[in-house]
Amino acid sequence: MTDGAHPQLQPVLDHLEAEFDNALARWQAFLRIPSVSTDPAYNDKTREAGQWLVDQLREIGFTADLRDTPGHPMVVAHHPGPGRGAPHLLYYGHYDVQPPDPVELWDSGPFEPRIVDGPRGRRMVARGAVDDKGQLMTFVEAFRAWQAVHGTLPVAVTAFFEGEEETGSPSLLPFLKQHAEELQADVAVVSDTGSWDVDTPAITTQLRGMLYTEVTVTGPSHDLHSGIYGGVAPNPANALTRVLGDLHDANGRIQVPGFYDAVVDPDGETRAQWRALGLDAEGFLGGIGVAASSGEQDRPFLERLWSRPTADINGIWGGYTGAGSKTVIPAQASAKVSFRLVPDQDPDAVLAGFRTFIAERLHPGCSFELHTHNGSPAIRVPTDSPYLQAARQALADAYGTQPVNIGCGGSIPVVGEFKSVLGIDTLLMGFGLEDDRMHSPNEKFELACFDNGMKAHAALLARMQAMGARRDAAE
Amino acid sequence: MTDGAHPQLQPVLDHLEAEFDNALARWQAFLRIPSVSTDPAYNDKTREAGQWLVDQLREIGFTADLRDTPGHPMVVAHHPGPGRGAPHLLYYGHYDVQPPDPVELWDSGPFEPRIVDGPRGRRMVARGAVDDKGQLMTFVEAFRAWQAVHGTLPVAVTAFFEGEEETGSPSLLPFLKQHAEELQADVAVVSDTGSWDVDTPAITTQLRGMLYTEVTVTGPSHDLHSGIYGGVAPNPANALTRVLGDLHDANGRIQVPGFYDAVVDPDGETRAQWRALGLDAEGFLGGIGVAASSGEQDRPFLERLWSRPTADINGIWGGYTGAGSKTVIPAQASAKVSFRLVPDQDPDAVLAGFRTFIAERLHPGCSFELHTHNGSPAIRVPTDSPYLQAARQALADAYGTQPVNIGCGGSIPVVGEFKSVLGIDTLLMGFGLEDDRMHSPNEKFELACFDNGMKAHAALLARMQAMGARRDAAE
Repeated sequence: MTDGAHPQLQPVLDHLEAEFDNALARWQAFLRIPSVSTDPAYNDKTREAGQWLVDQLREIGFTADLRDTPGHPMVVAHHPGPGRGAPHLLYYGHYDVQPPDPVELWDSGPFEPRIVDGPRGRRMVARGAVDDKGQLMTFVEAFRAWQAVHGTLPVAVTAFFEGEEETGSPSLLPFLKQHAEELQADVAVVSDTGSWDVDTPAITTQLRGMLYTEVTVTGPSHDLHSGIYGGVAPNPANALTRVLGDLHDANGRIQVPGFYDAVVDPDGETRAQWRALGLDAEGFLGGIGVAASSGEQDRPFLERLWSRPTADINGIWGGYTGAGSKTVIPAQASAKVSFRLVPDQDPDAVLAGFRTFIAERLHPGCSFELHTHNGSPAIRVPTDSPYLQAARQALADAYGTQPVNIGCGGSIPVVGEFKSVLGIDTLLMGFGLEDDRMHSPNEKFELACFDNGMKAHAALLARMQAMGARRDAAE
Repeated sequence: MTDGAHPQLQPVLDHLEAEFDNALARWQAFLRIPSVSTDPAYNDKTREAGQWLVDQLREIGFTADLRDTPGHPMVVAHHPGPGRGAPHLLYYGHYDVQPPDPVELWDSGPFEPRIVDGPRGRRMVARGAVDDKGQLMTFVEAFRAWQAVHGTLPVAVTAFFEGEEETGSPSLLPFLKQHAEELQADVAVVSDTGSWDVDTPAITTQLRGMLYTEVTVTGPSHDLHSGIYGGVAPNPANALTRVLGDLHDANGRIQVPGFYDAVVDPDGETRAQWRALGLDAEGFLGGIGVAASSGEQDRPFLERLWSRPTADINGIWGGYTGAGSKTVIPAQASAKVSFRLVPDQDPDAVLAGFRTFIAERLHPGCSFELHTHNGSPAIRVPTDSPYLQAARQALADAYGTQPVNIGCGGSIPVVGEFKSVLGIDTLLMGFGLEDDRMHSPNEKFELACFDNGMKAHAALLARMQAMGARRDAAE
């Protein structure tokens, strides 16, 4: 560590090295609990995983509890830190995991964590290895190491873990609103994104938002015989494809009226940094088995993934879909259509634009219904924030190289909720890799990434304390 | 009857009047047999319906048999007629019926035929009332009446009934080819179409053909997370809608290359006749609950139904279609797309055009497979044929008013097979009405239509004999 290096940090890093195998063992114990939140048959196990975290945090000097909700319980834990007005950090993670199926495609039991060799060294293989138990343990272990070496944490910390992230977090926003005072902090920390590669740390400075809609087109009052009525009867399946087929123009630009009006591109420096990352677009596409990309052809690849909005049909159905043939004009056809949003698109405005888009194109013999499943705006984390600077420094401390600022194509709704309910930004320091196989069989987390994660989080606590001290000195 | 009225016809018509209630009773006995060909649980009953026809025909003086096939048996029966080189007519029908479900929507048991009052008089309500048992019995009763009054039929007759029409007639073409010599005749007669209204007879002079295809678009090697990949990854559901959404232009014209090249419109006289029918387009559309029609807006309504080709999506599916939301880019999307064909479109040429249509529009990051479920060309029956003239006269005899020549939007593949295997045309004299609810609960057949049908078939036999006599005299 260079400028403002915290003398208390090195012994913590040494402790992490010495305790690595114990950290792995605790991580494996956590992974053995099959906390599959979507399946009520596992409700006890899901709760057990939450309780396991409560016990860990109590050992580390937190006051910690399981708090019941209509669904799976929340873990809420507080550590007062040095208690001298130090910065207060709110850490979030989730202790539930995706279902493991198809189980037969795993090389080992999804809940029997194994350490195996891979191209980049050893890796932990289990359901939840990276999403989210491995990532979550990087900071829990950092807390443990600080507490073990110094008998306290250098800043105040609140840990807040849910058990429903894989099922859409239905209890989270109500709980957050109800306990806003208790959960208030200066900044949040979430480890749910990725590093750039195994050796290059990254901090994610923007997430895309989401508008998820469903449209149903109707026409005739019942399914029709396509001989008796074909040629005059409006066909809702034809009408729906005519509408959705026009979502993009020939250059990949989305044609929903007003869609791009509120879009704010990242500043030139950020875009230049992204270009300098040198993403291998061909390799990226090759990894998913395609030879040509979609999207705005006049935009760089990473901008299309991180800072440009999208329109994807997630599902479409209507009419006869069984074996063989049935000569029917279907009475209705439907599609789930979702839009990844970017700053500063407003989900409500996009919904209104999509409604107009459909109405302008729909055959006059048909009508439609459009509703929303969920919507949340994009998030941009201010890069000039001292918190983000502290996070950048902590990553450099751990990896020995400067982090890159990256975007994320996906959405993390809790980050938007921390902003809207608590008024705080979130530091997105993640340690996953693109090939970790989240949501797939043989999910893994590189041990090198886990190790760097623990060290980066340990360093973050130091950097935050130093920042707080400078702030106090300045006042 | 006027010119060439057959003196032998009137006593046959009188006999039909006197025997009406007995004809209804026989028809009901036939309807009570639940000959549901698609359900193997009913195999015995389906066979029983075929046997019932064999017994009826033997009573009437035919030699008749059930002939086994890989599926349900064929009924083949011959009556030599007067044996003096008279015209030989081949009558076709089917003794199987659609499944009755949903049974709870029937006012009475689907296989408990009831005669009830309706807006146009009494009607028979049962599964198969019109499709096809009622229509089939109109000519079987005509045979019975001729035989009872005159001890013979005035022409040679072969009756050929299948039990698989509702399941796509898999045994028919092979049987026809195998027994072409035995089934050879001068012309075929099928009662499976409609009259114009309850008082106005019709002869159907053209049927549309069919090309039924299925297309599957693929892209990424597996379903993708729409955040991580959205904006660059081609989406097969988006790509499929883009292709199919372009099937029609803004005026309802199909954009498949070469689609209309081989289309031959009906002659001006036919088109004028159709215009003169004065179809109530608003009423037609109102009956299916729509206010605006699709199709070629510059073409009259009946031409769009009878003599213009169509492109309909019968089914479409891909991606996540369950409850709620799933942020997936589907790895594949599919659709069943069928085209009603008109003279002289060639199904193979249309398939080739559709393949080109897709290839020209599909996103380069996707690929597709296209295959055919079935295909058959349109049929036009020559209106100058003496057989058709005899049929027109017979209909006028029965109804007391000239028949109209109409088209049919649907397809009857056996008509094409009689042409291609036996080289003969088919007289499409049908007595159904648009609101008979074929394939639906509470299927019915008006007793007035049944009565007119029996009389028209009785008259047809006379008219055919007269035509044969004139032909012999001319030679």
